[in-house]
Amino acid sequence: MEQSDMRRLLQGIADGSISIDDAMLYIKTEPFSDLGYAKPDYHRSVRQGVPEVIFGQGKTAEQIIGITNALLQHGQQTVLITRLDKEKAEAVKRGISLTYYETGRIGIAGEMPKMRKGKIVIATGGTCDMPVAEEAALTAEVLGNNVVRLYDVGVAGIHRLLSHTEELMSARVIIAIAGMEGALASVVGGIADCPVIAVPTSVGYGASFGGVAALLSMLNSCASGVSVVNVDNGFGAAYQASMINRMGDD
Amino acid sequence: MEQSDMRRLLQGIADGSISIDDAMLYIKTEPFSDLGYAKPDYHRSVRQGVPEVIFGQGKTAEQIIGITNALLQHGQQTVLITRLDKEKAEAVKRGISLTYYETGRIGIAGEMPKMRKGKIVIATGGTCDMPVAEEAALTAEVLGNNVVRLYDVGVAGIHRLLSHTEELMSARVIIAIAGMEGALASVVGGIADCPVIAVPTSVGYGASFGGVAALLSMLNSCASGVSVVNVDNGFGAAYQASMINRMGDD
Amino acid sequence: MEQSDMRRLLQGIADGSISIDDAMLYIKTEPFSDLGYAKPDYHRSVRQGVPEVIFGQGKTAEQIIGITNALLQHGQQTVLITRLDKEKAEAVKRGISLTYYETGRIGIAGEMPKMRKGKIVIATGGTCDMPVAEEAALTAEVLGNNVVRLYDVGVAGIHRLLSHTEELMSARVIIAIAGMEGALASVVGGIADCPVIAVPTSVGYGASFGGVAALLSMLNSCASGVSVVNVDNGFGAAYQASMINRMGDD
Amino acid sequence: MEQSDMRRLLQGIADGSISIDDAMLYIKTEPFSDLGYAKPDYHRSVRQGVPEVIFGQGKTAEQIIGITNALLQHGQQTVLITRLDKEKAEAVKRGISLTYYETGRIGIAGEMPKMRKGKIVIATGGTCDMPVAEEAALTAEVLGNNVVRLYDVGVAGIHRLLSHTEELMSARVIIAIAGMEGALASVVGGIADCPVIAVPTSVGYGASFGGVAALLSMLNSCASGVSVVNVDNGFGAAYQASMINRMGDD
Amino acid sequence: MEQSDMRRLLQGIADGSISIDDAMLYIKTEPFSDLGYAKPDYHRSVRQGVPEVIFGQGKTAEQIIGITNALLQHGQQTVLITRLDKEKAEAVKRGISLTYYETGRIGIAGEMPKMRKGKIVIATGGTCDMPVAEEAALTAEVLGNNVVRLYDVGVAGIHRLLSHTEELMSARVIIAIAGMEGALASVVGGIADCPVIAVPTSVGYGASFGGVAALLSMLNSCASGVSVVNVDNGFGAAYQASMINRMGDD
Amino acid sequence: MEQSDMRRLLQGIADGSISIDDAMLYIKTEPFSDLGYAKPDYHRSVRQGVPEVIFGQGKTAEQIIGITNALLQHGQQTVLITRLDKEKAEAVKRGISLTYYETGRIGIAGEMPKMRKGKIVIATGGTCDMPVAEEAALTAEVLGNNVVRLYDVGVAGIHRLLSHTEELMSARVIIAIAGMEGALASVVGGIADCPVIAVPTSVGYGASFGGVAALLSMLNSCASGVSVVNVDNGFGAAYQASMINRMGDD
Amino acid sequence: MEQSDMRRLLQGIADGSISIDDAMLYIKTEPFSDLGYAKPDYHRSVRQGVPEVIFGQGKTAEQIIGITNALLQHGQQTVLITRLDKEKAEAVKRGISLTYYETGRIGIAGEMPKMRKGKIVIATGGTCDMPVAEEAALTAEVLGNNVVRLYDVGVAGIHRLLSHTEELMSARVIIAIAGMEGALASVVGGIADCPVIAVPTSVGYGASFGGVAALLSMLNSCASGVSVVNVDNGFGAAYQASMINRMGDD
Amino acid sequence: MEQSDMRRLLQGIADGSISIDDAMLYIKTEPFSDLGYAKPDYHRSVRQGVPEVIFGQGKTAEQIIGITNALLQHGQQTVLITRLDKEKAEAVKRGISLTYYETGRIGIAGEMPKMRKGKIVIATGGTCDMPVAEEAALTAEVLGNNVVRLYDVGVAGIHRLLSHTEELMSARVIIAIAGMEGALASVVGGIADCPVIAVPTSVGYGASFGGVAALLSMLNSCASGVSVVNVDNGFGAAYQASMINRMGDD
Repeated sequence: MEQSDMRRLLQGIADGSISIDDAMLYIKTEPFSDLGYAKPDYHRSVRQGVPEVIFGQGKTAEQIIGITNALLQHGQQTVLITRLDKEKAEAVKRGISLTYYETGRIGIAGEMPKMRKGKIVIATGGTCDMPVAEEAALTAEVLGNNVVRLYDVGVAGIHRLLSHTEELMSARVIIAIAGMEGALASVVGGIADCPVIAVPTSVGYGASFGGVAALLSMLNSCASGVSVVNVDNGFGAAYQASMINRMGDD
Repeated sequence: MEQSDMRRLLQGIADGSISIDDAMLYIKTEPFSDLGYAKPDYHRSVRQGVPEVIFGQGKTAEQIIGITNALLQHGQQTVLITRLDKEKAEAVKRGISLTYYETGRIGIAGEMPKMRKGKIVIATGGTCDMPVAEEAALTAEVLGNNVVRLYDVGVAGIHRLLSHTEELMSARVIIAIAGMEGALASVVGGIADCPVIAVPTSVGYGASFGGVAALLSMLNSCASGVSVVNVDNGFGAAYQASMINRMGDD
Repeated sequence: MEQSDMRRLLQGIADGSISIDDAMLYIKTEPFSDLGYAKPDYHRSVRQGVPEVIFGQGKTAEQIIGITNALLQHGQQTVLITRLDKEKAEAVKRGISLTYYETGRIGIAGEMPKMRKGKIVIATGGTCDMPVAEEAALTAEVLGNNVVRLYDVGVAGIHRLLSHTEELMSARVIIAIAGMEGALASVVGGIADCPVIAVPTSVGYGASFGGVAALLSMLNSCASGVSVVNVDNGFGAAYQASMINRMGDD
Repeated sequence: MEQSDMRRLLQGIADGSISIDDAMLYIKTEPFSDLGYAKPDYHRSVRQGVPEVIFGQGKTAEQIIGITNALLQHGQQTVLITRLDKEKAEAVKRGISLTYYETGRIGIAGEMPKMRKGKIVIATGGTCDMPVAEEAALTAEVLGNNVVRLYDVGVAGIHRLLSHTEELMSARVIIAIAGMEGALASVVGGIADCPVIAVPTSVGYGASFGGVAALLSMLNSCASGVSVVNVDNGFGAAYQASMINRMGDD
Repeated sequence: MEQSDMRRLLQGIADGSISIDDAMLYIKTEPFSDLGYAKPDYHRSVRQGVPEVIFGQGKTAEQIIGITNALLQHGQQTVLITRLDKEKAEAVKRGISLTYYETGRIGIAGEMPKMRKGKIVIATGGTCDMPVAEEAALTAEVLGNNVVRLYDVGVAGIHRLLSHTEELMSARVIIAIAGMEGALASVVGGIADCPVIAVPTSVGYGASFGGVAALLSMLNSCASGVSVVNVDNGFGAAYQASMINRMGDD
Repeated sequence: MEQSDMRRLLQGIADGSISIDDAMLYIKTEPFSDLGYAKPDYHRSVRQGVPEVIFGQGKTAEQIIGITNALLQHGQQTVLITRLDKEKAEAVKRGISLTYYETGRIGIAGEMPKMRKGKIVIATGGTCDMPVAEEAALTAEVLGNNVVRLYDVGVAGIHRLLSHTEELMSARVIIAIAGMEGALASVVGGIADCPVIAVPTSVGYGASFGGVAALLSMLNSCASGVSVVNVDNGFGAAYQASMINRMGDD
Repeated sequence: MEQSDMRRLLQGIADGSISIDDAMLYIKTEPFSDLGYAKPDYHRSVRQGVPEVIFGQGKTAEQIIGITNALLQHGQQTVLITRLDKEKAEAVKRGISLTYYETGRIGIAGEMPKMRKGKIVIATGGTCDMPVAEEAALTAEVLGNNVVRLYDVGVAGIHRLLSHTEELMSARVIIAIAGMEGALASVVGGIADCPVIAVPTSVGYGASFGGVAALLSMLNSCASGVSVVNVDNGFGAAYQASMINRMGDD
Repeated sequence: MEQSDMRRLLQGIADGSISIDDAMLYIKTEPFSDLGYAKPDYHRSVRQGVPEVIFGQGKTAEQIIGITNALLQHGQQTVLITRLDKEKAEAVKRGISLTYYETGRIGIAGEMPKMRKGKIVIATGGTCDMPVAEEAALTAEVLGNNVVRLYDVGVAGIHRLLSHTEELMSARVIIAIAGMEGALASVVGGIADCPVIAVPTSVGYGASFGGVAALLSMLNSCASGVSVVNVDNGFGAAYQASMINRMGDD
C-alpha cells in the first residue's frame, strides 16, 4: 500500500465512495504478516514513504520469492532485492519475474518508477568501486531519483575531479564512494555546497582492513557536511540520499 | 561575503550600477588571507552557502581572536567557535565580544540569525549526552534552523521515546545522539520517515572504548535512512542537518 | 550417571539394598576416561546437573562417535553434539544412530527428554540469525525446557516486537539474538522483567567485524538485566538459560 | 509504586474499596516525568519488579538530588546511586540524606530492604578487584539478596579457590570478578552447577587493555553456564544475579 | 657441523692430529651458502647447539628439497621441516627420503636422535589443540627430549588436570597449549614449580579472534613463571623448552 | 606523451618549426579520456615524470586491455600492470602483447627501458617475501633503475646480513622487505647511510595479523632514515625509490 | 616455610627428633590465611621453590604492611614488593623496615639472599627502558641470581650490541628488554644459544600503542628460542629467568 | 668526528703528515663510550653522514647534559635534542648552552650549519599540526636544508592548496603533515613529481584514535610516491627528507 493509496482510501471515505467497514477491513489487515522465517512490513511505505526492501544475503531463494510475492500481493509496486549474488538470482528468477543487475548485485521485481526527480551525483575514487556505486545508483533510481554517475575521479589525479566541478555544484546530494584512503569524501565535501554521504568500500589491500581505513578517514573528514554509512553500503547511502533529494521537491 | 551579497554584486553589474572594474577588484581579493598560522576562507559562504566556522581546540586564544576579527572584517555576520573550553573562552572574551555556552562549549561572535526555518529534532539517549546535543543544537540555531530538544529518551525505557512519536514524525531531519550501545539511532530510524544523522558519544565505560561501541552500532544500524558522523561530533551533524532542513524551503 | 541415578544409589546404600563395596566400585570408576584424544566427563551430570555435551567442530567423525559411545555406555541418556556440519553428520550417522538438525547444526544421539518445563523465549532480529537461534532452541529443548520462537522482530520495525510484549512479559528467561547493531537486546531488556541473555551473531557486513559490533553493543546495553555470551554462541546462551529457567521449578 | 502496590490497587478495585476513577487517576499519572535533563521512570518497579537506579557518573550533584527526590516522592523506598565518586557524594549529601560506601562508590537514599533471600556468591581473583566486587555486593543487598563475599581466590593459587568448593556449590548464582587474564570465570564455571555471571575488571597492566583481555577470556570461556557483563560493571552483574536468585523463591 | 664435531676438530689441533691449515679450510667454508632463494645456515648447530630448521610454509617443494639436501651434505644429521602440509609433503617425498607426521604437519629427513633426556610435559586444553601439541611434541623429540603428552585437561573440568598433579610437578618444563580463553596456562603455572611456556591456539569461535583472546589471557596470566610464544607456535615453544630442559643435564 | 616529448614540442614552438595552433591542439587534448569505467591519465609522465601504471586487481581483463591500448596509443612506451594474477594475465594476453612475471604478479606491455641508472638494493628477510620483492624489483627496472637483489638476509642470522655490508653502503636507496617482526628495516637502517623504504609483508602466522606486526615494527623503528609503505606494497616502495635514485643523476 | 625447612621437618620425623603430632600441627596450619582483603600463600616456597611476592599496585600501604608482616611471621626471609611507587613506599616504610629502589619501583623487606648463582644477562634497547630493566634485575637478585646489566644496546647501532657478543654467549638466560619496534629480541635471539625472554616496554610514541608494537614484534620474532612476557613485566621475566638459571646448578 | 675529518685523517696518512700509529690511536678509540645509562655513538657521522641526535623524552636533564657534552667533546658541531619539553629544557640550560624552540620542542647545542641546500617543502593540513611541522622544519634546517613552510592548506578548501602548486612542483622533497583524515598526503602526492613523506599527526577527536585514522589513510594513499613515518614523527620525516634532498647535490 503506497502512501498515495492510503490518501485515496481516506478520500474515498470522505466522499462516501468507500464504506467505513470496507476501509477498516483494508486497514486492519495486520501491517506485517508472519511467514515464519520473516515478517514483511506492508505498511512501511505508509509510515516511511518508501517501500520495504529485501536484503538478499543470508536468505534462501525460496524465502526471497516468498517475501517478494507477499509484498506484491499487498500492493507494493516495485520490490528491490539487494546483495543478491548471480547464482541466487537465477534461482529466484525460476519463481518470479525479476530483472537482475550483476555489477550492483541488485534484483528488481515489479515495475520501475517512471517519474524521476532532482539530481543525485554518485562519484567513485576508482574503477574497482563500481559494484558499490551501481548498488547505490540502481537503488536511487528505483526510489525515483535522477542519478549522474561520475566514476574514477579519485584524488590522486585531482584534475579529473576538478573538471567536474560544475556537476558537483548542481547536485542536491552527492554520494562519494571510495576505498583505499577514502580522501575523495573530504575533497568533494570541500567543493560542494550540498550534503555529502560518504561510502567507504572494501577496495584496497594491506592495512586497508577491508574498508576500515577509508571508513576512519571519512569519519574524520576535515570537510563539513559529510556523513558516513557502513563499508560497501551503497544501498544505505542511496536510501538516505533519496530522502534528501526528494525534500527539494515538496 | 554572503551568497546574497555576491548576487547583488552581479546584478549591480547587470544593471550598470557597479562598474566591472570595481566588481573585479572586489571579487579578486584573494578568497583567503594568510595569517601565517591560518588561512581563513572568506568566500566559503559564497561557495557553500554557510559561513566559515572556527574549530577552537588546539588553537590559542590569540589565534582565535585573529581569525574571528579577520572574518568579521570581511563581512561575515556570525562567527561560530566550537570546542572552546571555558578557560580559553574567558581569554577570547578579553579580545572580542563573545557569547559563551558552557555545556555545548560553543562561543558565538557577531549577531545571531533572526529568522529560523524548518524543524530539526535532536534526541539523546541519556542526560550525559547533553554536551554533544547542545553543541549540535546551538550550531543548528546559528545556521538558522528551528530546533526541538528531546533529551533522555534512550531505548532502555522505550515508552519514553514512543510518547514522542508525533514530534519525530513531523521533523525534517533528526539528529540521534547516544553513547553506550547507541541503539537509539536504529529505533528512531525505524520510526521516522526523514533522514536521521546519528552521533555516537564517548559516554560509557568498560568496553565502550570512548564511543566506538556506539559508533559501530550506528554504522551497522538495521534501519534505513541513517548516516553517521564522528564520535561527539555534534557540530558536524548539525551542519549537515541544516543543509538538509533548508532544502525543504528552497 | 544422571543426578537422580546417584540419589538412587545412595538411597540403596541407606536402605541396605546395595552393599557399600558395590557402591564404591560404581562410584570409584574414574569420573572421566582417557580416550587418548579426549577425556569425556561421566560425572558431569552429577556435579552440574547437565549431561556432557560434545563440541563437534575440530573433532573428526571417529572421535565424535568414540566419545558419544563412551557417554552412552556410562548411562548418559541424551548426547548433544553442537557445531556439527552436514557432511560430518553424515559420517557420524554411519557409526551411531543420530538425529540431525541442519539449520542449527545440531546432532542428537539417544532419547529426547519427554518432560519440558518453564518458558524460554528466543527472539531474533532477522531471518539471517536463524542458525544461531535454532542452535539455542534445540539445546534448550534437549535440556528439558519449553521454548517459544520469536523470529525477525528486529528494532528497525519496532511494532513487530511490541506486538509480542505479552509473550516477552511471561517468559522466565529471554535469549535475544541479533547481528548488525545488536540493538534488540537493549530494547528487549527495557521491556522484560526477567533475565535477558544476549547473543551477538556474525550476521552483517562492512564494519560489523563478524559480530563484534553487535557484541560491543550488547555489552554496553543501557538496559539492566542483560548479560552476554560469545558471538554465535547459541548453545552457551541456552545452557545458562536452562539453568535459570529450571530454578523457577525447584 | 512497587509491584505489590499495584496489586493492592487492583485488588482494591476488585473488592470495591477503591473507585475506578481514583484508580485511573493514580495510574494515569504519566509513568515518567520530564525534569528537562532527565525523565525518571516511576513505573519501572511495576514493569520490571526492580526500582529505578541512578547512574551517578556524568550527572551533576544537583541532577542526582533532583532525580532522587522525584523518585522518593513517587513512592520508591530505596534509591541506589552507582558510580558516585567521593567528592560528588559529599555534594549530594548536602541536598538529601545519603549513606555512602566509598570502596564500591555507591550511595543509598531511603531505607535498606530488611528481608534478604537466597544466596549470591561474589568471588574475586585478587585484592584489587574489590571496588567492582563491592559495587556488586551492595547492589545485590539493596535488591534484597543474601551475599557471600569470597575475595582474592584467583587461579594462580588454585587451592585457595578449591577450599571454598562447598560455598560455590551451595550458591544460587555466582558473580565471578577478575582482571588480568580473567581465568577465574572458567574455573568457577567448571566447578559450580548454577549460573555464573562473569565481570571482567580493568585491573592489570601491559596488554590487559583496561580489562579487554579479561573480557575476551570470559567470553571465550570453555566452561558452560557462564555469561558476561561489561568491564567493571559490578552493578549489571548484581542486577541480573538478583533476578535469577529471586526466581528460586517464587 | 654439530657442536661436538667442532670440539673434536679443535682437540685434533691441540693434540697435533689435524694440521692448522686443514682446520682453517674446514672452518672457513662460509657458514651459509646462497641458494638464491635461501641462505641455509650450516654453522647454526655450532653457534646455538641446535640444527637449522626449515619453516615449510611459503616455500615450494623444490626449495625445501634444495635446502634439505644442502644441510644434509654439510653434515647435519636430522632436518626438521615444520608447517608442511600433506600435499607438499608428498611432493617433497618425491625428491628426498622423508618421514611425515600429518597431525603435527612435520616432516623429518635423516635419523632421529636416539638418546633423549629430561622431561617436557605438553598439556592441552582440548582435543582440538592436538595439531599444535604434536608440532611441539615432535619438535621436542627431534631435539632429543623426553616428552609426556597430557591432552584434553582444560580447566572447565579442573579435576582432569588435578589428577595429573604429580606429572606436572616432576616436569623440567611444561608447555601449556590452549585456545578459547587460554586459562590452562594460569592454572598450570599456579601448580607447577618449573618454567611454563604457554602456546595460545587459534581454536575457538566468535570473539576468540583466531587465538588473540587466548594470547592476551596468557600474557596477562596472574601466575608467575609463565612466558608466551606466538599463536599456534608449537615449534617455538618446543625449541625453547628443549634449551631449558637440557640445561638440567649440563 | 613523455616529458621529453613535451620539451621537444615547446622547443618546436620556440624555433618556429611547430605552429602555436598545432601545439595548442596537441596539448589541449584532454589529459585523460573517459572510458566509462576508467579515466586513464595521459599527461602523468609530463606532470610527474613517470608513466601511468595499471593496478590490475579488481579490474576485468577487458578493462585492462582497454586502458593499456589507450595509453599505448597516446604515446606511452611501457605499460606496467601490477597485481595481475596468472589467470587474468592469460586473458589479457589474448587481447594485447604482454610479458608476464608470475612471482611478482607483474605484466608489462610495450618495450622495457634500455638505460638503467644508479643502484637500488632490495633486501628481504626470508624466502617467503619474494613475491613482494619481485613486484618491487620489476617495477624499479621498468622505471629505469639498476636493482641488486639481496634475498633471505633476515636478522635471526645477523651474519648473513653483515656479510653484505658493502653492498648496503653503496646503494642510493634500499628497500627493506620483511614479514614476521619486520626487524630487518631497523638493522638495515642502522647500517646504511641512504634512505631506507620499508615494506612489511603479510608473511607470518599467529599474531602477525597479515603484516600488521611488521608494519607497526617498521613504523616504530629506532633507526632514523626509515619510512614505510603499505603491507605488501612492493610497487609503491619501488616507485618512490626510483624517484630518489634518479635524483642522484640530475 | 622455605623448601629446605620442609625437608628438615621431614628428616626430623625420620630421625625421631620431631614427633609426628608436632609435625602435623606445623604442616596443617592452613597454607594461606584470610586477611579479608587478601589470602597470602605461606606454602608457596614449598610448592614452587620461590617465596610469595606482593604486587604493590592497587593495594593500600596498610594492606602491603599487613601482608608483609604475615609473610615474615610465617618464616619467609625476604619479601619482594613490586610496582611500588615512591609515595606509597614512604607510607609502607612508616610501618615496616623496607629498602626502596626508585628506578625499578621495588621494595624489599627482610634480608637479601647472600649466595647468588649462574648468570642472567639483562639487555635493553635504550636508556628509557631502565625502569623495566631494574625491576627485572632487582627481582633476579632477590631470587639469588647473578645479573649482568647491558643497557642501551639497541639495534639501530648494531655494533654496540655486537661488541658484547661474548657476554651474550656466556649467559644462561638473557632478558631482552625493548620498546619501539622491539627488534632487540630477534637479534639477540639470533646470536645467543640460551633461552631469551623478551620484555616489550611501553617506551615509544605514535603508533607504538603503549608497547603493543614491540609486543607483536617479539611474538613474531623470526629467531627461535624466544618467548615473551607482558608489556613492562620485568618481574615476570626475571622470575622465569631465575627458574631457568637455577636449573643449571641442580 | 665528521665524515670530512675522517677523509682528512686518511689523506694525512697518505701524504705522510700523520703517522699510522697516531691514526690508529685516533680511529681505535671505541666508536661509542659507555655512560652507563647510554652509549652515544661518536662515529655515526662517519658511518651515516649525519650526526647523533638525542631523543629527549624519557631521559633526565642530567642524562641529556651528559650525552651532549660527550658528543661535543668528540667533535660533533651541532647537537639536536628532540621531544624536549619546556621544563626539562630549562633544566638542561642550567648545564649547557642551548637554544630552545618551544613549538617544535627542539633544543640545539653548538652552532647551526651556515650552508643550506636544495628545497624541502613542509605542508600542513591545519593550524594544529604546527608542533609536528616545526619539529620537522628545525630538524631539516639543523641538517643543512632549505625549508619552505606551507601551513594550513588542508583539502577541505582545496583552492588554498592549489594556489601553491608552483611551490610544490619545485620542491625536491615534500613533507605532508596532517591529522584528522590525512587526505593531504594523497592530494599532494597526486600533484607533485618528487617523493612525498607523509606524517600523520595525533590532531583530531572521536574515532581519530590519536592519529591512527590519518596513519591508515596515508598508508593506503592512492597516490604513488608517498611513504609514511610514525604518528607525530616530524623528526623522522625531516631526517629522511634531508637524505633525499642532499642527493640532488652530490
